[in-house]
Amino acid sequence: MAMSGEDSPGFLTLSDIETAASKVVLGPAWAYVKGGAGEELTMRANREAFQRNILRPRVLVDVETIDLNTNLLGEKVTVPFYVSPTAYQGLLHSDAELGTARAASSAGVLGVFSTISSRSLEDIAKAAPRGPRWFQLYLQPEAKTTEALVKRAERAGYTALVLTVDAPVFGNRDQTVLGGFNVGSIPLGNGPDVFPPSRPIPVDQLYKTRKEASATWDALDRLHDITSLPIMVKGILTAGDARLAVDHDARGVIVSNHGGRQLDQAPASLDALPQVVEEVGSETEVYIDGGIRRGSDILIAIATGAKAVGLGRLVLWALAAGGEAGVAKMIGLLKEDLATTMALTGRRTISEIDGSVLAKKAQ
Amino acid sequence: MAMSGEDSPGFLTLSDIETAASKVVLGPAWAYVKGGAGEELTMRANREAFQRNILRPRVLVDVETIDLNTNLLGEKVTVPFYVSPTAYQGLLHSDAELGTARAASSAGVLGVFSTISSRSLEDIAKAAPRGPRWFQLYLQPEAKTTEALVKRAERAGYTALVLTVDAPVFGNRDQTVLGGFNVGSIPLGNGPDVFPPSRPIPVDQLYKTRKEASATWDALDRLHDITSLPIMVKGILTAGDARLAVDHDARGVIVSNHGGRQLDQAPASLDALPQVVEEVGSETEVYIDGGIRRGSDILIAIATGAKAVGLGRLVLWALAAGGEAGVAKMIGLLKEDLATTMALTGRRTISEIDGSVLAKKAQ
Amino acid sequence: MAMSGEDSPGFLTLSDIETAASKVVLGPAWAYVKGGAGEELTMRANREAFQRNILRPRVLVDVETIDLNTNLLGEKVTVPFYVSPTAYQGLLHSDAELGTARAASSAGVLGVFSTISSRSLEDIAKAAPRGPRWFQLYLQPEAKTTEALVKRAERAGYTALVLTVDAPVFGNRDQTVLGGFNVGSIPLGNGPDVFPPSRPIPVDQLYKTRKEASATWDALDRLHDITSLPIMVKGILTAGDARLAVDHDARGVIVSNHGGRQLDQAPASLDALPQVVEEVGSETEVYIDGGIRRGSDILIAIATGAKAVGLGRLVLWALAAGGEAGVAKMIGLLKEDLATTMALTGRRTISEIDGSVLAKKAQ
Amino acid sequence: MAMSGEDSPGFLTLSDIETAASKVVLGPAWAYVKGGAGEELTMRANREAFQRNILRPRVLVDVETIDLNTNLLGEKVTVPFYVSPTAYQGLLHSDAELGTARAASSAGVLGVFSTISSRSLEDIAKAAPRGPRWFQLYLQPEAKTTEALVKRAERAGYTALVLTVDAPVFGNRDQTVLGGFNVGSIPLGNGPDVFPPSRPIPVDQLYKTRKEASATWDALDRLHDITSLPIMVKGILTAGDARLAVDHDARGVIVSNHGGRQLDQAPASLDALPQVVEEVGSETEVYIDGGIRRGSDILIAIATGAKAVGLGRLVLWALAAGGEAGVAKMIGLLKEDLATTMALTGRRTISEIDGSVLAKKAQ
Repeated sequence: MAMSGEDSPGFLTLSDIETAASKVVLGPAWAYVKGGAGEELTMRANREAFQRNILRPRVLVDVETIDLNTNLLGEKVTVPFYVSPTAYQGLLHSDAELGTARAASSAGVLGVFSTISSRSLEDIAKAAPRGPRWFQLYLQPEAKTTEALVKRAERAGYTALVLTVDAPVFGNRDQTVLGGFNVGSIPLGNGPDVFPPSRPIPVDQLYKTRKEASATWDALDRLHDITSLPIMVKGILTAGDARLAVDHDARGVIVSNHGGRQLDQAPASLDALPQVVEEVGSETEVYIDGGIRRGSDILIAIATGAKAVGLGRLVLWALAAGGEAGVAKMIGLLKEDLATTMALTGRRTISEIDGSVLAKKAQ
Repeated sequence: MAMSGEDSPGFLTLSDIETAASKVVLGPAWAYVKGGAGEELTMRANREAFQRNILRPRVLVDVETIDLNTNLLGEKVTVPFYVSPTAYQGLLHSDAELGTARAASSAGVLGVFSTISSRSLEDIAKAAPRGPRWFQLYLQPEAKTTEALVKRAERAGYTALVLTVDAPVFGNRDQTVLGGFNVGSIPLGNGPDVFPPSRPIPVDQLYKTRKEASATWDALDRLHDITSLPIMVKGILTAGDARLAVDHDARGVIVSNHGGRQLDQAPASLDALPQVVEEVGSETEVYIDGGIRRGSDILIAIATGAKAVGLGRLVLWALAAGGEAGVAKMIGLLKEDLATTMALTGRRTISEIDGSVLAKKAQ
Repeated sequence: MAMSGEDSPGFLTLSDIETAASKVVLGPAWAYVKGGAGEELTMRANREAFQRNILRPRVLVDVETIDLNTNLLGEKVTVPFYVSPTAYQGLLHSDAELGTARAASSAGVLGVFSTISSRSLEDIAKAAPRGPRWFQLYLQPEAKTTEALVKRAERAGYTALVLTVDAPVFGNRDQTVLGGFNVGSIPLGNGPDVFPPSRPIPVDQLYKTRKEASATWDALDRLHDITSLPIMVKGILTAGDARLAVDHDARGVIVSNHGGRQLDQAPASLDALPQVVEEVGSETEVYIDGGIRRGSDILIAIATGAKAVGLGRLVLWALAAGGEAGVAKMIGLLKEDLATTMALTGRRTISEIDGSVLAKKAQ
Repeated sequence: MAMSGEDSPGFLTLSDIETAASKVVLGPAWAYVKGGAGEELTMRANREAFQRNILRPRVLVDVETIDLNTNLLGEKVTVPFYVSPTAYQGLLHSDAELGTARAASSAGVLGVFSTISSRSLEDIAKAAPRGPRWFQLYLQPEAKTTEALVKRAERAGYTALVLTVDAPVFGNRDQTVLGGFNVGSIPLGNGPDVFPPSRPIPVDQLYKTRKEASATWDALDRLHDITSLPIMVKGILTAGDARLAVDHDARGVIVSNHGGRQLDQAPASLDALPQVVEEVGSETEVYIDGGIRRGSDILIAIATGAKAVGLGRLVLWALAAGGEAGVAKMIGLLKEDLATTMALTGRRTISEIDGSVLAKKAQ
């Protein structure tokens, strides 16, 4: 279906975004976006965990007005979903992170941007100065590099840090390797001293490189020493690790398996959510990412105890298909889809979404 | 297999009706008929819920005579299935609702016709004056429009109302959108003041339009004020809503998820049936629709507590494939299939079908 | 793989018999052989019920000699499998039932032949006078026709009757209808007075014809009045009907769903076997048919309580592929496969096969 | 993806080894490598049993150093996986067992070599004199042949025997037969007196030949009489047989279903592992083979109680694709994959892998 103009980024619904993106992204970059670790069992499980749920409709409830507003670490946002940090957005569209930031900011959606972005964190901040925006941090081989990044993020007005902890080594992403992806030639926005460096590395070497594999929970304490920004810990899948995060003064945890790209056969993030919520949900904010594609997924995650959900590949597909306009359109479709799901389950506000909306599946 | 003549509407069995229809319906209209909400999980679940059942045969029972007669809200019908209300039948065949009405009436089958029919409710009534026929009502944005429709239905001899309550907003039917369906250009039989109006609306707008989204159970009370027709409430999937329907003087409820076209991940209608039957089955009539394709499905639904089952897509396929003759042939095949299933399970009358015909599935 | 000669009927293993047959049988006849009732759920379930089982191997047991001999209603046979009665074998190969009878008899395998065979029961008896052979009986519309058939079977040396009780009406076999099968033009070996008659009947009529649909268990008593042959009742799937069969002096029951060709969603025959064995297994012989394709299936059926298993489609495929030689080869392969399965589970005789060979499947 | 040179054996990851091999192996030999018994249900179940597991990640554990070393029957090895004995490696690559032995030995990986190797056990020993290497024994029809083989293995420096007990007869490998494999023309390295002999045998005869089918557990006692080498018993799937092995002084047992090539519907080896570990795990070493393709499989097997895992088809594929270099590359990839899986589950040594790494799968 041929489309044109700012508002026509090549897709019409949430169902055809991936296809639209697949047609315009080069093979190796697509292999990078698409690929999961190992046999991609966790990647598929992420999606299936949502699809296994059954929703209980309610009828003849006044749903003329649906309010999607919420707040994340105290910041007001228009929706309970946010842009997850993903690397190298410049691979997908020349708008890169600037397009994502503009589209998110215009819609009042939180954007989280990666240490290994294609554009510098300062340029991203300038592109959409209103934010809201948080900075995702990979611990660097040298402590001073880590500190420098944190300080730059503070100066550029990022209001929280998201510390990714599930990648002490890279997962074995066979499909990405087979797709010919070579990260070495991709320029990194945050400078050549940031790991991984922007010089050519054979792909079969890259995935062998240990990256701060020696880091322990002390690393979180050290971060608190150098910044007063609130810190979310991303990549938690067990109650035990969630407890440790809170014990080390994390302001919240993000239940995530890195989109199925790190440990294959790790639990689907939605399957891991209940134990994390039970352990720390009353003390801190719990978010989730992995496999979210529709409004119903968002409602299910919130009903299971998440405060917000992160969008990874969905943003990348939309960006690839239409740049900033694509991300904007995707956000609009997702808002509509969430509002529709809430209306048909009789929930008018985010706080009205609770566990009673979920039914047990028939066998 | 080439067929010709009035009695040869392009299909030979219940198994090839859909295929026969798919060959003659234009793409966008087919996308409308076929499409479910979201990822179509509920649409598929509707069918699988029937297929999961195991029937217990009985042998050497005298089954020379099988009697399919029953009555619905006191009206005699020849079979425990009826024509569900579906929109825009003119999209599928020039006979439109008139063909459906004639075929159903000739066979003594109850027909329920939609507010948004292609032909006027009066013309439908004239086409098959003997009925039986009921009128499906969508609450209109203006109360007076609703009242006018009800009065017209009464005058035209419709003997009950079926109030659809599961569509305060339209479901997100991505596949229908992607198939290019545009409802705007389709003439509506009941006049331009009926919602949705028969003027062009971009499809991406239509699915955003709230339609009486503010209605609550009071709406049912107001309907009783303006008509003494018995009212069935269609679109119930939980015990709680079934109880509310009965508390508001519904004469019965129809367990339905709108053919999987409204809330994706709503329960399969057959899976929702037991809780509704348990809650209100002793006080009122409970029908079901969604995924019924064969006589065995009807027997299963009745054994699970339904008094009757509605046919949606099956009627549309038959109408598309052969107009009135197609619907007539389908009704005949379905009667034979139900009779065969009853014979092989040793049930001679509808009232002999009970839960003992269902066995637990082996694991 | 091109093959030639008496011993090379176009297949090499149990796995390629169906394919070999499919290449030489005309479309409509193949549709008749292949087709199950309705959506063919029971037909597939028959097979899957066997595949769900897990076998417990035993090692370092002396299995140099494996003995497959057993006896059925007191008659010695070389194997615990037999040829099930199937109709119209002349559709598949010019050898028809004569080839089947010769191959079975030569191997010491029981053959059961159908009322609606392509060759007369007398010719079948003459083709393989040594037998063993039993006669399958469909109750005829006229009692005198039934009696005449029984008397002919007695005179021709058939040593037992197999009364089929699961076809008071024909199942709705959509795939057979769609495949263009028309039974009317097929000559019947047992004469024109046998039902169904060998005159042209439109296929859509045939499947509607009631056949002794009024018969009840008294029919079995009447049979005992006219013959002293032992009678097996075929088509039992519940404990209740098994009890009735024994109460009416059946010498045994055959757990069968007619190869999935009568009541779709009837239980898989293997799933129904335990309840029948529990009810009547200590009093009478219990056989099973439906989905048996390999030696492992036979071992599983016996371990679940069956004394013997019947082969339907497997015989038809072998007959189609190679006539008498095909059936002989299939029997040989199946014996080897059964012997191998017994050796690897440490069972030297049929009586050593018990429930301890079955393990619970891991979840 | 075109590759060249010693280090480029045509595959890049663990995911593309099978495909790389399939392109260079002749059809009949591929049918031999690929084929399982019967319907290959056990062969598939082997793989699925691993895939059903869920791993519990741990984050912020110091995993800078991962140590894969372990010991098997007291011999130091660099990894907890070993080369399983497989027949006829010369079918796959001219390097045959010599390439496998060199690659394994260079990497400090235990190699187990088959009685029916393409090269003689002495040549294999000479190719990689450092070992470690064990000899797999099939009991021979004549006791003196068995004894001669054992004595040769001792002289050539093999340090343990692996007695295969699950092949008293050959499994029915239909797919191998259909693929045209004919074992008769394949030269055997250990001489013409070794069973099966290297003279032409029609494939349909081979699979019928009983091979020491009369052997019982006494055979193990007799072996101890002629050698003091430690003996592992391979092909155990039940607690009862594991107990018997230990009672007959086996030094360990290998839980194996012969790669799904002997008894179809035998349990997946991973499913059988817990009962064997429970029965004899505290007294003896328990290994496992069947379906291992990745590092995660190894971690799962060890967490379930195995001390080591054997690689069958994975070695054959690597050998086919690249000879010695292929096996070496595969070993390297598998080590990396295991190390990555350990790092992401927070395990630094093999002994740190325990049952707490496994989570229950969500339903």
